[in-house]
Amino acid sequence: MTNNSGSAVLQPEQEMLNWGRLILDGVPYADLVSARDRDPSVTWFEHWMQTAANYERLGETAESRGHTISAGEYFVLGSLAAQYAQFLWFDDRRRAGQERKVELYRRAAPLLNPPADRFEVTVDGATVPGYVRTPTTGEGPFPTAVLLGGLESTKEESYQFEQQLLARGIATVTFDGPGQGEMFPEVPLRGDYERYTSAVVDYAEKLPEVDSSRIGVVGRSLGGHYALRSAALDDRFIACISWGGFADMDSYDDETPMTKESWKYVTASSTDEESRERVMTLMDVRSELHKLRVPTYIQHGMHDEVPVSEVEVVKQLAVDAPLTIVIEPDGDHCCHNLGPRPRIEMVDWLEEQLKPRS
Amino acid sequence: MTNNSGSAVLQPEQEMLNWGRLILDGVPYADLVSARDRDPSVTWFEHWMQTAANYERLGETAESRGHTISAGEYFVLGSLAAQYAQFLWFDDRRRAGQERKVELYRRAAPLLNPPADRFEVTVDGATVPGYVRTPTTGEGPFPTAVLLGGLESTKEESYQFEQQLLARGIATVTFDGPGQGEMFPEVPLRGDYERYTSAVVDYAEKLPEVDSSRIGVVGRSLGGHYALRSAALDDRFIACISWGGFADMDSYDDETPMTKESWKYVTASSTDEESRERVMTLMDVRSELHKLRVPTYIQHGMHDEVPVSEVEVVKQLAVDAPLTIVIEPDGDHCCHNLGPRPRIEMVDWLEEQLKPRS
Repeated sequence: MTNNSGSAVLQPEQEMLNWGRLILDGVPYADLVSARDRDPSVTWFEHWMQTAANYERLGETAESRGHTISAGEYFVLGSLAAQYAQFLWFDDRRRAGQERKVELYRRAAPLLNPPADRFEVTVDGATVPGYVRTPTTGEGPFPTAVLLGGLESTKEESYQFEQQLLARGIATVTFDGPGQGEMFPEVPLRGDYERYTSAVVDYAEKLPEVDSSRIGVVGRSLGGHYALRSAALDDRFIACISWGGFADMDSYDDETPMTKESWKYVTASSTDEESRERVMTLMDVRSELHKLRVPTYIQHGMHDEVPVSEVEVVKQLAVDAPLTIVIEPDGDHCCHNLGPRPRIEMVDWLEEQLKPRS
Repeated sequence: MTNNSGSAVLQPEQEMLNWGRLILDGVPYADLVSARDRDPSVTWFEHWMQTAANYERLGETAESRGHTISAGEYFVLGSLAAQYAQFLWFDDRRRAGQERKVELYRRAAPLLNPPADRFEVTVDGATVPGYVRTPTTGEGPFPTAVLLGGLESTKEESYQFEQQLLARGIATVTFDGPGQGEMFPEVPLRGDYERYTSAVVDYAEKLPEVDSSRIGVVGRSLGGHYALRSAALDDRFIACISWGGFADMDSYDDETPMTKESWKYVTASSTDEESRERVMTLMDVRSELHKLRVPTYIQHGMHDEVPVSEVEVVKQLAVDAPLTIVIEPDGDHCCHNLGPRPRIEMVDWLEEQLKPRS
């Protein structure tokens, strides 16, 4: 495989794939090995869609036998498989994989422990779909974390991270915003993601299980950018985590070819230049960072493609926010390569913000 | 590295290491990568013992800040690291790693969700240490699974499998028997493991949280052999799972050199011949299998070093037991390479035996 200039380029699954990320998000190691070692005549997409179908069948069998916990686990595994089938391509496979991911997670949702309760709110006439999960033990209303997906991650993929929050007594709210998952066909990437976050908070804060005075926002990758924007512009958030995020996209030209393809897709741009222009204009929170006043946790890996200088930008502009900055010298994008510790540390920090001990 | 005949042999970590097993048992993928890519001047043992120390420190910090869930998780990770530091060696490292494993798990135990309650019973004057964990939701007394470790696995390593049982409302009991973990220094491998299992049941069946009429036994690898023996000889078990087990060691000569070293160690034999003799004599349940009368699940991988013909031996001799035999065509020893499905299927089968729906 060669690019236009004739030099060798990597297969998408070689360029983008991060085993650390997939495994921490719940993809079985065995499934990754199986995908890597698959019959070469079977495409990556076909292989993972078949994996998703296998888990769906296992889920159906388990459910029919009354094994609801197992059924939920299988449907989540199927949903993850469909996610990673499509996330490297930007043609019909993208939509097909996304639809399967959504479908399988919807089947999982009522079977999870705790269940994920689907909701839909409306912004500008468009539907914003999401899920709420609340801890199984302890007395509500609960401190709550609103979780934001990124460039190609959606509300279905934070399942494992939700488990960590829920185990510590924190409710979770996830949704798809502009350019993400279920919303993308109706609303591509926009520069006002915070309006969607706020609409979700409008809904969530009225739930009896949500303590409206103790809501934090956590965003990963592009979601880390959205988290900064959301916390700066909605004072109902009392804490913010930008996990591998950024303030601006001035470094757009340094992104990998695959990531540029992904930006082009989510902005629904016709040309590379149009995509570049939109991303650099819309993905810029610098003018708002002075409004950020709540405790904010910035996690960044030194080996991230997103330049660590983005942390400096936040430091210089978010002058009124108490910042906790964690730069991992050996970390990649979102520190997926470092195992459970960085995630546990974020969760513990958030718990301290949302559940201060007297 | 060469063996006595001059041919190249593998490093222990190449010969014995099964990433699928370690990951399913809870070792982070990142830790395995880190061990593989370590500075070559650092030994495998030293590397993992340092990993254990790192997790211990993280656990202590988390605990001091009130993050008990995180502290428990870190101590478990440290315990697992110490386990996999030592399991390939049979000198002083073995005991040092075992002691660290035990120590770190003891620190984790009260912090786990649900906690692991330590107990000690006595057989022939020797202490049999173990842990009981009971589901956090639902009404007790609970159906209960007694979990048996294997040749070099102990009561501390079933944490992830326990989580699966507990999530389904099944209490768990683990312990170290002859040749295992804490018991080994006092009692090496014996041929009457069922006496130790029964002593543990004597204790567990009196606990108010344990439903003494619904106790099953699950053993993995050598523990699968012990499970057959325990269920055949103690009629308080109403179900049995032999997970990668065997009826006899007639195939001893085909074992890998590392496994033979392991047998020699746990039998406290002075010579290879003495070890071989003890193993083949003591590890033989054939004469007892006609007493097995409870539903029994046999799981075996076709690529297991333990010959699949062992399944036939059980079939031919356990004529009064309703057998569920699952032979996985692509499975390795204990099907660790197949991801979560085989474990979920065992757990669901056990749930059906212990919690029959009316």
